[in-house]
Amino acid sequence: MPTWSAGQYLKFASERTRAAEELLARVPLAEPRAVVDAGCGPGNSTELLVQRFPSAAVSGFDTSAEMLDAARQRLPGLRFVEADVAGWRPPAGTDLVFSNAVMQWVSGHLAILARILGGLEAGGVLAVQIPDNKSELNHVLMRETAMDVGRPDLVDAAEAQRDRVHPAEAYYGRLAPLARSVDIWRTTYLHVLDGHEAVVEWLKGSGLRPYLEPLDAAEQEGFLAAYRARIATAYPLQADGKVLLRFPRLFMVAVRR
Amino acid sequence: MPTWSAGQYLKFASERTRAAEELLARVPLAEPRAVVDAGCGPGNSTELLVQRFPSAAVSGFDTSAEMLDAARQRLPGLRFVEADVAGWRPPAGTDLVFSNAVMQWVSGHLAILARILGGLEAGGVLAVQIPDNKSELNHVLMRETAMDVGRPDLVDAAEAQRDRVHPAEAYYGRLAPLARSVDIWRTTYLHVLDGHEAVVEWLKGSGLRPYLEPLDAAEQEGFLAAYRARIATAYPLQADGKVLLRFPRLFMVAVRR
Repeated sequence: MPTWSAGQYLKFASERTRAAEELLARVPLAEPRAVVDAGCGPGNSTELLVQRFPSAAVSGFDTSAEMLDAARQRLPGLRFVEADVAGWRPPAGTDLVFSNAVMQWVSGHLAILARILGGLEAGGVLAVQIPDNKSELNHVLMRETAMDVGRPDLVDAAEAQRDRVHPAEAYYGRLAPLARSVDIWRTTYLHVLDGHEAVVEWLKGSGLRPYLEPLDAAEQEGFLAAYRARIATAYPLQADGKVLLRFPRLFMVAVRR
Repeated sequence: MPTWSAGQYLKFASERTRAAEELLARVPLAEPRAVVDAGCGPGNSTELLVQRFPSAAVSGFDTSAEMLDAARQRLPGLRFVEADVAGWRPPAGTDLVFSNAVMQWVSGHLAILARILGGLEAGGVLAVQIPDNKSELNHVLMRETAMDVGRPDLVDAAEAQRDRVHPAEAYYGRLAPLARSVDIWRTTYLHVLDGHEAVVEWLKGSGLRPYLEPLDAAEQEGFLAAYRARIATAYPLQADGKVLLRFPRLFMVAVRR
């Protein structure tokens, strides 16, 4: 998993929070006891959980100290701890595990999701959203840009950080034996962004990070200039000056049997 | 547009109503004056509009007398009239035009949507959901089945009834010049159905209708048997006996500038 800039990630907060809202809207719980935001980032998803379940014991964990600091500032009363979802198990009394835009960075996440669901009591809910955009044009162009700048090694390094997102049916097959219901859907948002630079800014907050991290400041600038040029060629400008960014995300809500 | 059986359509009412609910959730209106359900069917979407906007004047129209009868029985106080969206214009005072799973049957629907949006006052909302499943396996198998039973003409007849669903970007390009915002997304639901027969039952309520209508009862039985066999081969049975039916739908919410 790359290191994170809370500020960059939150530049498109309303678009990025929408997916968490839509995931939460499908959670069939009224008054859960403990709720855990697994990979809470800067706490924007945690805040939604607090709003929906004001009487629950809501907590969050993440691997990024910077993200945890941002979350603690946003929600001072809550408990945020440093932990990795890879080895995590839900504590007794956990009624909801919520995981928004995390699992794409977690190797072997399909087995991890099954283990977490299996660790819940009957009626407990696992709710997960995973960006599924590695086949999108903007990701293809990241790989092309690595070639442009003579750094094909960046592709391997970036790929190694991201786990493969499986077809929806694979999640059903793994979770259904443990669940009384599995609700899965995949939504492609058409984000309306203010020109090509905004597309690059959006991706700097997530998908571009593994490409930029191994580079020094001058190399980063060169990479971004080459990437910006490819984006400008590949994404047509709309009549109103906007650029449309397709962004697919996979959602699932499983209720423990 | 095919003729409709309200009973068949409503067999999967909760799955079919979910899309209408999710579309409505994105409508950014508080207290609209008049709300019109354009292509109201049996009134399940109209009922959602009444629940969300109890003080609005909600009405509906449709081309199907059977659907209108079902809608009037469901919502006796409301005004339901027979009309075709192809020539329809929103009356003055209309703040929301809602169109759920209709436009795929309307020839030239992209231009019609632009005309309806253009006919709204500033701030008026056009909200549309269009099933976008013609490339799905289950539709491919309808065309194959027509060959199996020696009736390739059914494919042309069925195709003629359905309008092409365009890429999301095409709707943006057409609606954005008239709009202060255009929110577009495409969701593929993974419906969990009780075996292969349930898949056939689902499609009898919509996509199969143009194939079945030209046939007499014995021919319909033959077509359905051949289709059922193809579905059973193409869609694997899950370990729990369920069949997963992918169902993509395109959504858009445009606010008149």
